[in-house]
Amino acid sequence: MIITIGREFGSGGREMGKRLADALGIPCYDKEIINEVAKLHNISPERVDKITQSDIMTVYPGTIGRTFSSHIYYNDSAIKVMSSQYDVIKRLASEGDAVFVGRNADVVLKEYNTFNIFVYADSESKLKRCMARSEGGETEKEILKAMKKINKDRASNRRLMTDDAWGKKESYHLCIDTSGRQIKALVPFVAEYIKAWFAAE
Amino acid sequence: MIITIGREFGSGGREMGKRLADALGIPCYDKEIINEVAKLHNISPERVDKITQSDIMTVYPGTIGRTFSSHIYYNDSAIKVMSSQYDVIKRLASEGDAVFVGRNADVVLKEYNTFNIFVYADSESKLKRCMARSEGGETEKEILKAMKKINKDRASNRRLMTDDAWGKKESYHLCIDTSGRQIKALVPFVAEYIKAWFAAE
Repeated sequence: MIITIGREFGSGGREMGKRLADALGIPCYDKEIINEVAKLHNISPERVDKITQSDIMTVYPGTIGRTFSSHIYYNDSAIKVMSSQYDVIKRLASEGDAVFVGRNADVVLKEYNTFNIFVYADSESKLKRCMARSEGGETEKEILKAMKKINKDRASNRRLMTDDAWGKKESYHLCIDTSGRQIKALVPFVAEYIKAWFAAE
Repeated sequence: MIITIGREFGSGGREMGKRLADALGIPCYDKEIINEVAKLHNISPERVDKITQSDIMTVYPGTIGRTFSSHIYYNDSAIKVMSSQYDVIKRLASEGDAVFVGRNADVVLKEYNTFNIFVYADSESKLKRCMARSEGGETEKEILKAMKKINKDRASNRRLMTDDAWGKKESYHLCIDTSGRQIKALVPFVAEYIKAWFAAE
């Protein structure tokens, strides 16, 4: 029983992952993955996050006929870090049932029969969640801008690995709108749904 | 507790609606809506279906600047039938808790606090479901073509009523992939999820 969670920034996907893992009595891997990769490369977890989420790309814009097109590639150091991330996720999955939050684990674990969730919410709810966990200092406008950038990075990062688009329902088995709801109120029923899904195979 | 179900043709959305209604002990409205509208206009239910789903549109293509654009409008008789459909859906909703399958009921019932589901599946599963309920005679290719057309009609029909796109997860609270699964195995947990969602308000 391997569950992966993709999520919009601020939608409560990480909390959903932790709580689902608790409800199912299995481990949840989130920051753990970055921490392991960081140790392997002797860099900080923040640096791993940056490499794998935002500054990995070398963009080669070009014009083909009348169509403007841009090609995105990993640069060398990003490839090595991404490769380690693959290995860490695969090793963790081989150890048994688990929930993976983010990191495109559904793509990495394609050969497993994973249950893939996407968590989303309306802007108001996401902003509220971000404000609540913010340590202060950021304005609403700054948070909205950061939110947009992180989601854009997640989507483009995924495009380097698969044609199954980030956040498009066809890439997932269940898409959950958490707008105006407490994650903990919904989790028990998502957990039961997942059990039924695996049992109905 | 008003639940609406949008669905890809062949995804099992109608069965999901009936079974959810049974599980929740509330009525399910599906063909009933068309039948009522048909009676009001003294036409056949098939004709209502055709008017509201496929031949409602008058398309005015035009060119604005360098952008080709097409505008879609209802024609007169379609407007009257659609208007009756609105009324029937609203009256049924006013009578109490219910499940509505199709008919863009989520848009019609915007002022209610509806729980909106979208049901989808991969092509293989949808084809299998259609073949199973087909009375024979159609080839796989014909069914796939019809499937595509019906989904296209549903999407364009919805565009006449709202900017919330058909099948786009942001238009729904829960999107369920039924690929390779029996609807009845999943329904009890969807029902519990819905109860929790309404209770968590």
